Amino acid sequence: MRAVIPYKKENAKSRLSSVMTKDERETFVELMLKDVIHTLTDAGVQDIDILTTNAGGVADDAGVRVIEDDADLNPALNSYLKRVDESVLIIMADLPLVKSEHIRQITSSPSDVVIVPGKGGGTNMLFIKQPKGFYVKYYGSSFRTHCMIVNDLSRSMDVYDSFLASTDIDEPQDLIEVMLHGHGLSGEYIRQRFGSEAGNGRVQLSMID
Amino acid sequence: MRAVIPYKKENAKSRLSSVMTKDERETFVELMLKDVIHTLTDAGVQDIDILTTNAGGVADDAGVRVIEDDADLNPALNSYLKRVDESVLIIMADLPLVKSEHIRQITSSPSDVVIVPGKGGGTNMLFIKQPKGFYVKYYGSSFRTHCMIVNDLSRSMDVYDSFLASTDIDEPQDLIEVMLHGHGLSGEYIRQRFGSEAGNGRVQLSMID
Repeated sequence: MRAVIPYKKENAKSRLSSVMTKDERETFVELMLKDVIHTLTDAGVQDIDILTTNAGGVADDAGVRVIEDDADLNPALNSYLKRVDESVLIIMADLPLVKSEHIRQITSSPSDVVIVPGKGGGTNMLFIKQPKGFYVKYYGSSFRTHCMIVNDLSRSMDVYDSFLASTDIDEPQDLIEVMLHGHGLSGEYIRQRFGSEAGNGRVQLSMID
Repeated sequence: MRAVIPYKKENAKSRLSSVMTKDERETFVELMLKDVIHTLTDAGVQDIDILTTNAGGVADDAGVRVIEDDADLNPALNSYLKRVDESVLIIMADLPLVKSEHIRQITSSPSDVVIVPGKGGGTNMLFIKQPKGFYVKYYGSSFRTHCMIVNDLSRSMDVYDSFLASTDIDEPQDLIEVMLHGHGLSGEYIRQRFGSEAGNGRVQLSMID
């Protein structure tokens, strides 16, 4: 099996711009990506692809394969899925709370597809045993769309239930979860940036927001 | 073991007032309470206490014991904990996505205490094997506070990781989760109120919000 992480660094996470500068956001997404790569490696995933529009945005020492594709997320992923001939885990780069045990459980499921919902109807992870004939459609209520795609293709599906894996980081209030439950480099960064007292996180962030 | 559900119906969930009237919110919290009671019963929990400031707010046919206490949440719960002599699950009334399998797993943990974090640093459930000597402190970053209390009392603890159990319903955007993942009466109510097409949930709600 392999994992693919769609990634965009440049001016990323604009919804965090009320609490973080562009430079801080770019540093933060880079650290989140490193955390996700570390988690995957720790779970024994050896083949990791970064799908990005700008290969320069990924550190040379990340130990991953960088695939440059200027297309939008969906066409880029769907063209990727056509090229691979083994199980694929699509995992977003903004999931710094995910742990290796989640990855192990998801990739050892007996179902054809495992989906991890994101907050607000999104899709945080998709594990696809047979990429042949499968396609994705992110944005909007993609969780529901992906459930329908799986159903249309008559494949079996498992919805994976984890707070940590469902917490994608998009908005200022999400940073509180990184403060409290973050176990990697991005957690350290946010605790340093917003104060190490995670207990006061909510108050501080709502003042800034 | 027994379960206790702190409950307030009157003018409840004021943060939902931008999308629901007072009457709708009161109906909604009542349905969420019913869902939580049903989930507990389904998990085999026979002794369920509703801790409320107004006993009239709980339906007669709920099959539960209603305890009236005019004190605020923390003193009311702490005085409750002093009176019980068996394991207690404190579960909030705004958790309509919780399933009976969560309850079974939580209450069969080998740890002294199981905590289910809520979004934004809250505490959605606390399973306390030995209530003697234990106390709670809700509001603010109560997840962290409760972790410290457990630590101070030298008890063992398990943090239960579930998106469904960590999703407490407080704000308009949380209703999308009820639409998509709600399996009870409150899910039906929200889908009826905001349209049955869960796929459009996010869009509709953000327009109203």
